Amino acid sequence: MERLTKTGPIFTDLYELTMAQCYFAEGITDEAAFSLFVRGYPENRSYYVAAGLEEALAEINDYTFSDKDLAYLDKTGLFTDDFLDYLNRFRFTGTVRAMPEGSLFFADEPIMEVSAPIIESQLLETYLINTIGFSSLIATKAARCVHAARGRNVVDFSLRRNQGIDAGVKVARSCHIAGFAATSNVLAGKLYGIPVSGTMAHSFVSIFENEYNAFRVFSENYPDNTVLLIDTHDTIQGAENAAKIGIEMQKKGQSLAGVRLDSGDMATLSRQVRRILDDAGVTDATIFASSGFDEYKIDRVLRENAAIDAFGVGTKLGVSADAPYLDMVYKLVHFGDRDITKQSPGKAYLAGEKQVFRKIGENGMYTGDIIGAKNETIENAVPMLETIIENGKITAPLPDLADIRRYCAESIARLDETIKAIDSPAPYPVSASHNLLEKQKHMAHGSPGGGHGNNL
Amino acid sequence: MERLTKTGPIFTDLYELTMAQCYFAEGITDEAAFSLFVRGYPENRSYYVAAGLEEALAEINDYTFSDKDLAYLDKTGLFTDDFLDYLNRFRFTGTVRAMPEGSLFFADEPIMEVSAPIIESQLLETYLINTIGFSSLIATKAARCVHAARGRNVVDFSLRRNQGIDAGVKVARSCHIAGFAATSNVLAGKLYGIPVSGTMAHSFVSIFENEYNAFRVFSENYPDNTVLLIDTHDTIQGAENAAKIGIEMQKKGQSLAGVRLDSGDMATLSRQVRRILDDAGVTDATIFASSGFDEYKIDRVLRENAAIDAFGVGTKLGVSADAPYLDMVYKLVHFGDRDITKQSPGKAYLAGEKQVFRKIGENGMYTGDIIGAKNETIENAVPMLETIIENGKITAPLPDLADIRRYCAESIARLDETIKAIDSPAPYPVSASHNLLEKQKHMAHGSPGGGHGNNL
Repeated sequence: MERLTKTGPIFTDLYELTMAQCYFAEGITDEAAFSLFVRGYPENRSYYVAAGLEEALAEINDYTFSDKDLAYLDKTGLFTDDFLDYLNRFRFTGTVRAMPEGSLFFADEPIMEVSAPIIESQLLETYLINTIGFSSLIATKAARCVHAARGRNVVDFSLRRNQGIDAGVKVARSCHIAGFAATSNVLAGKLYGIPVSGTMAHSFVSIFENEYNAFRVFSENYPDNTVLLIDTHDTIQGAENAAKIGIEMQKKGQSLAGVRLDSGDMATLSRQVRRILDDAGVTDATIFASSGFDEYKIDRVLRENAAIDAFGVGTKLGVSADAPYLDMVYKLVHFGDRDITKQSPGKAYLAGEKQVFRKIGENGMYTGDIIGAKNETIENAVPMLETIIENGKITAPLPDLADIRRYCAESIARLDETIKAIDSPAPYPVSASHNLLEKQKHMAHGSPGGGHGNNL
Repeated sequence: MERLTKTGPIFTDLYELTMAQCYFAEGITDEAAFSLFVRGYPENRSYYVAAGLEEALAEINDYTFSDKDLAYLDKTGLFTDDFLDYLNRFRFTGTVRAMPEGSLFFADEPIMEVSAPIIESQLLETYLINTIGFSSLIATKAARCVHAARGRNVVDFSLRRNQGIDAGVKVARSCHIAGFAATSNVLAGKLYGIPVSGTMAHSFVSIFENEYNAFRVFSENYPDNTVLLIDTHDTIQGAENAAKIGIEMQKKGQSLAGVRLDSGDMATLSRQVRRILDDAGVTDATIFASSGFDEYKIDRVLRENAAIDAFGVGTKLGVSADAPYLDMVYKLVHFGDRDITKQSPGKAYLAGEKQVFRKIGENGMYTGDIIGAKNETIENAVPMLETIIENGKITAPLPDLADIRRYCAESIARLDETIKAIDSPAPYPVSASHNLLEKQKHMAHGSPGGGHGNNL
């Protein structure tokens, strides 16, 4: 996988480094295990889709400070020469267990656990939450759009609204994992081999003498891929012009791929346009719709019997507008020879390294998860966390993007429809194992408590 | 300025390239001018802060396709050899006029105008909206946080919640422009020279035998920068431990920099903690607060007389959670020898290249803007758009970040308090000049209409 941006451990919050220097100065090198999980759900979410793992692993696999990084850290005046020497030799030497990309996961379940000498495992916090949190946020939103589209194609049109360059390629990749048909993002096409697609802008139509001529020029240049944007002046007139082009293309042995609606009442307009195209014999041309779509609007127009074959979704998908962040945290669960937790009301989490066990019914459906201790065995349930980094190195080849996408589709198919509902989905049953609950009773009191957010 | 991610024009929506190939094939090379502006306001916004220009200019100044980009485009099968040859030689040769970074701008006002042969000016669309839109979104949110803090320091703690790597450094830079005191983001410190700061995590406190020992170790390692996180077990007990450390530091001729609250009722707790510190004679130690802050929560706790000296803001700032995108568009306003607009209801915009004129009252306050035609003169008003790229090259050195930050603070000081209100701000008066309105009457009918969103 080609990475757009490789930063190394300098991509971190300052406190990770200042704490690390304390550990270094005090000779604290015990193994510390951290658990990466999401607390609760935003509104209308009952499951998450894991994404971003491949990029995170590539980063961990080659996690070093550059000379420039060290020169900068030196300049801050916060760090000793001894500690900077240590950072110069710094490598990640620990173990990473994680759910494969494309897995479904649920609130409070570890999606990843990292175990290493404390400086190493602590230092990964900011990067892992940023990368896996955002990629999973978007994969989840995208899965909802795909589900709402009931088998119709969905295309990522969000690039201009994404929060930065890197967000753009992460969104395209997460959408592809979650089942999108294509992206408008050319860079993502280049980096990941995701199919790219697009139509035309209103500005294109406007610079020609008239709409028909704009359509004609486009169809001559792309006889195999002509999708005409028909709402620049008036959608009905646009559909009539598109039908003319479709007829002319048929005479040349070609076929108009489709038309695109970008404004107005989508359900009504799409049926009118379908009739115009069908009456002209341009029955192969599909109707593509864009303009403010997300899973809610897709669901609504299809319930209104829109004659739409595919959707372009942009802004609201690309920033997960109804829930623009996840409460993903990276919590210390084991240090040296003891389990760690915090027990303050509302912020408690489960101590100890864990495994997530998924039960599968006879019909292949997921029936519930059990969060257990790392080394326990639960019969008739699939352990979800796999060891993927040992001694700091990736242990086995990672699945390619097509396999991740396929696995994600299979996983979503195993989830009950009620849990996938766009509005007010039912909860998925997750419990803790007896074994894990017993462990909690033996906890030292008053282990890390406190804040809900970023504890910098 | 060091750029984290240089992508060139391959960072674009596919349709920009497919339209470009049509223009190329048809020999359409007329100059086209596009206007970059935001339609309307999200709730509780009445002004915007411009940011992201420096990065955009660096990109435009060196806007080329790499061999790998061209090999990928060739592989898509969509492009002719002639067009790929053209892309291989592609450079931006046009003119860019823009408001300086740190400027305030308002709905419907062009923040930038680009004029160039149509392929060149069209191709910039996706990149400019992405980069300038997101940077300005965050600078605007950050300015609101600074305003709510009434002179207290505000620090960016959002890195883990930012939507990707690149978003992280853009957020830190936009916050710095808007007046934040520091960031936790070490990479942004390295790239831009922004002050970095941080405290400690709950995990740090939890691995020592007790809180006091954790505090002691930290203070011994950072005698000049000790801010102690006091809510791991119990905030009051934590404040008492911090007071002990403060007294011990005083005996060594040192000074405890501060304590940090990260949970609980901030107004009440902060006053209790202040009393504990003051009673112990640790009066210099400041109280730093974090946990779910944004401009609304800062405003609320200060109205409740919280004894808080500085705020760490994270998640809600870092994705602009209450308004995670701007409706920024890049619209064709002039082509060849004619002005262009669209006139469909609700989506109309002003035809022609423009200038924004800002009126300043005798007391130095901004009193209103007039959007005029590019070449008109309006007396007693400052033209906001400056030519910064000519013949494809940056014409003059750009201001450094400290100057941008200073200019932004001056600009915000010139805006009436009612317009800066956190809730339900008053509107800022913006009108169109007589000259510009006259131009609209002579428009060809039915120029580009249509969609509200991404017209791909």
